[in-house]
Amino acid sequence: MEKITIILAGPRGKMGMEALKLIKETEHFELAAAIDRKNGGKLISNIEGLPALDAPIYEDVEQCFREIKADVLLDLTTPEIGRKHTEAALRHGIRPVVGTTGFNEEELEDLAKTAEEKGVGVIIAPNFAVGAVLMMKFAQMAAKYFPDVEIIEQHHDQKLDAPSGTAIKTAELISKSRKEKQQGHPNEKETLQGARGANMNGMRIHSVRLPGLVAHQEVLFGGNGQILTLRHDSLHRSSFMSGVKLAIETVMNIDILVYGLENIIE
Amino acid sequence: MEKITIILAGPRGKMGMEALKLIKETEHFELAAAIDRKNGGKLISNIEGLPALDAPIYEDVEQCFREIKADVLLDLTTPEIGRKHTEAALRHGIRPVVGTTGFNEEELEDLAKTAEEKGVGVIIAPNFAVGAVLMMKFAQMAAKYFPDVEIIEQHHDQKLDAPSGTAIKTAELISKSRKEKQQGHPNEKETLQGARGANMNGMRIHSVRLPGLVAHQEVLFGGNGQILTLRHDSLHRSSFMSGVKLAIETVMNIDILVYGLENIIE
Amino acid sequence: MEKITIILAGPRGKMGMEALKLIKETEHFELAAAIDRKNGGKLISNIEGLPALDAPIYEDVEQCFREIKADVLLDLTTPEIGRKHTEAALRHGIRPVVGTTGFNEEELEDLAKTAEEKGVGVIIAPNFAVGAVLMMKFAQMAAKYFPDVEIIEQHHDQKLDAPSGTAIKTAELISKSRKEKQQGHPNEKETLQGARGANMNGMRIHSVRLPGLVAHQEVLFGGNGQILTLRHDSLHRSSFMSGVKLAIETVMNIDILVYGLENIIE
Amino acid sequence: MEKITIILAGPRGKMGMEALKLIKETEHFELAAAIDRKNGGKLISNIEGLPALDAPIYEDVEQCFREIKADVLLDLTTPEIGRKHTEAALRHGIRPVVGTTGFNEEELEDLAKTAEEKGVGVIIAPNFAVGAVLMMKFAQMAAKYFPDVEIIEQHHDQKLDAPSGTAIKTAELISKSRKEKQQGHPNEKETLQGARGANMNGMRIHSVRLPGLVAHQEVLFGGNGQILTLRHDSLHRSSFMSGVKLAIETVMNIDILVYGLENIIE
Repeated sequence: MEKITIILAGPRGKMGMEALKLIKETEHFELAAAIDRKNGGKLISNIEGLPALDAPIYEDVEQCFREIKADVLLDLTTPEIGRKHTEAALRHGIRPVVGTTGFNEEELEDLAKTAEEKGVGVIIAPNFAVGAVLMMKFAQMAAKYFPDVEIIEQHHDQKLDAPSGTAIKTAELISKSRKEKQQGHPNEKETLQGARGANMNGMRIHSVRLPGLVAHQEVLFGGNGQILTLRHDSLHRSSFMSGVKLAIETVMNIDILVYGLENIIE
Repeated sequence: MEKITIILAGPRGKMGMEALKLIKETEHFELAAAIDRKNGGKLISNIEGLPALDAPIYEDVEQCFREIKADVLLDLTTPEIGRKHTEAALRHGIRPVVGTTGFNEEELEDLAKTAEEKGVGVIIAPNFAVGAVLMMKFAQMAAKYFPDVEIIEQHHDQKLDAPSGTAIKTAELISKSRKEKQQGHPNEKETLQGARGANMNGMRIHSVRLPGLVAHQEVLFGGNGQILTLRHDSLHRSSFMSGVKLAIETVMNIDILVYGLENIIE
Repeated sequence: MEKITIILAGPRGKMGMEALKLIKETEHFELAAAIDRKNGGKLISNIEGLPALDAPIYEDVEQCFREIKADVLLDLTTPEIGRKHTEAALRHGIRPVVGTTGFNEEELEDLAKTAEEKGVGVIIAPNFAVGAVLMMKFAQMAAKYFPDVEIIEQHHDQKLDAPSGTAIKTAELISKSRKEKQQGHPNEKETLQGARGANMNGMRIHSVRLPGLVAHQEVLFGGNGQILTLRHDSLHRSSFMSGVKLAIETVMNIDILVYGLENIIE
Repeated sequence: MEKITIILAGPRGKMGMEALKLIKETEHFELAAAIDRKNGGKLISNIEGLPALDAPIYEDVEQCFREIKADVLLDLTTPEIGRKHTEAALRHGIRPVVGTTGFNEEELEDLAKTAEEKGVGVIIAPNFAVGAVLMMKFAQMAAKYFPDVEIIEQHHDQKLDAPSGTAIKTAELISKSRKEKQQGHPNEKETLQGARGANMNGMRIHSVRLPGLVAHQEVLFGGNGQILTLRHDSLHRSSFMSGVKLAIETVMNIDILVYGLENIIE
């Protein structure tokens, strides 16, 4: 495979550190530079806790893009900063792979237009866990044949919001493909309030919170005499790296903007 | 093993028919007679759909107990009728095994006294599925070491009430052994109402309802870095028969009243 | 929906009886006639145990197809008989939906040619359980991104062969989409022979056999920090009926032969 | 609760570091000293990566036990060193809690005798994960009622041996309580060798190995119409700490040797 050179923004974050490991371990990936709020002028290998990669660190994005020739910008910073980096990269003909949810629809349309004009691919993905993305994609497909579905998501008990974002996204995708229906018996009754979970478009979502859990989701489809279950267990943040790898490889071969990993998975 | 002779009350019900099969297939069980609202004077083998057992059918309980010598009364009728049968059996020195929830505490105390006076064993069990009883027993034991627990019960979507009786019973047993605690993060928030399920003594119960499901329950215990799961799947009413067999064998060796299969399981 | 008239071959088999129920309960389905080895001249409603449908029974296939005008032949007989029925139906312009594995490749090609010439749809499906078909389809898709996969299939302990046909079919489909690889550690060692299961194209298949189980399969995909699980539980033979319904509706709108339900599922 | 003072042997190992965290976070635990191969004379808080605890480090065991008054020795070193530490602690009247499998039966008997003579409790536990210990204990109990059982253990694909030690231990415990039986259909046939897993005392064990997995085990019991499943997921080595805590608290109240955490769990 041909070498792909990468500029990484956000090398000291949890995701950034996983990405450094990925780049180091992937033969056809090469780190050209990193963008960081501090440490400008140093090398990655100078920073304690980071791997032995001799790529220079830049604090100024424009300078980095001017001085360093690279194929891809991998941005794992915050929504706001990620937006600026993406625009700058596009201007310099560098293909952005961005892991953020920070773009509104208008911004996405603008980016898509720029990408097309320049003929430069862009991939923006709120979720890089390929397994989770497949689970959602399969759920949307299955719901066409099994309109009766419930979602059980399970997380550690330090999580504040219920249901999880992934559960809501899954329910939205399912709603697009199934006939609308109110599930359960029309006369069913909760003798303890909340037992039947949250009702989203007629579907039920259940949120389990326990110490020891990490991030898990089960989508159950029921039909006559059968149950189809899709389950994803995310046990470590390294789970995101297969998606990052896929996105970096794919962005080299497209010349438009793609939003969501599900759209580059066949 | 020594032969145990049995009088079965309720031979044409769903459970009764399973019991006939059990008795026929168990070498050391023998059907002495059956008690039925109708078909008095006929044999079991005369009734369409019932197995080839030559035991006589009685409509009158007293007459049955006078004329037929048997070790055990297996009563699978309704709560009200079951109560009368139990008392009559005890009077005749026949050991009752009763699958009903129809006794209140006072009646149970009366029965216990009679049983002790007569030195005749009685077993009354609301749930004969040994697997479900073990799950509940283990849950109670585990909760001492894992006070963080959630229950997910799953049934077909024709079930009207949520949570299930078994889920509530399980939560009650768990409450006896764990330190009281309110689970989940103190600041957790439902963005969709009901997501976190029903709250029973600080524990969460989630009720899934889908076509295709039969009767299932999972009890999840979470601790540092680990999850312990107890699950019972009841896929067919024949699941009750192992408990019926165990109760019939056990009632021969006791001379008191035992309420609940969990108390004859070690 | 427009009415679809159906001739059912094999009305007294287990699957045939489920199909009669399906036809009776589906508003836009109508039973035109049945083909049976015996009972010629009677009506379905005359046969004990069958539902109250007034469709005539034929023993002679040709006579049936001459006298009865119908849209679809639903054949749930044996492979040999099913083949004859299919050919005869095509000759009479009746669209066959056939649940058998009894055709070899040459026969399928011949049938496909006839179907195209006549412009008449044919659907042949070895497995009508939509959930199982989706599981296999999803497994094939997922293997492209998760080449590490193991299959656990679970059946009742009266099953003689291991692994199950569905497990082998799943492994074949996965082999088509994943890069060939030998899984597990190169130096792994079985201290008890067979622990690592059967090796099929580098993938491991495990067959569980227990009383109480019906027919279940789990496909586990492992990647960095994550597990994706696809599971199908078939608890009752009614599970096949959603696929039969789908095939009957689909065969009306195609004019070629389709082999395998996976090819009419999008 | 009364304060328990602890000497920890092996503070820099993976388990030792978890133990330091446990001691720091438990109000009624206090670290009196640590025993290490190096760093003698320093404090725990002097060592990079260890928590801010001011306990002194000793390289010489005898000196440590002479100079430091403590209730409990928590030994998380190697089998050989652990043996020496245990004997020395007993001599000084300090109660050992030891996480090792390194004692043979004779040594255990000697230790038990010394413990009894001195009236000092000792707890030796090959497995400190309370959830795993409960799973095994419940499995042994359940097998009495469900003699049909299969074990599925799942680990990451860097594990070299199959089946796992926990699976073998579980099967041994089950063998003690169930009637011996050869499971599966007497005429069952593997069309792919190994499909039915390893045969241990008539029970089947299946070993799954995939990247992304950590350490998991399922014990499935099948009976008429029902399945009982016990599952343990160990996702992080912190899972051992609840057992360490339990053992430290328990060893204060016993004056004999106990081998195996299952014997202090009720």
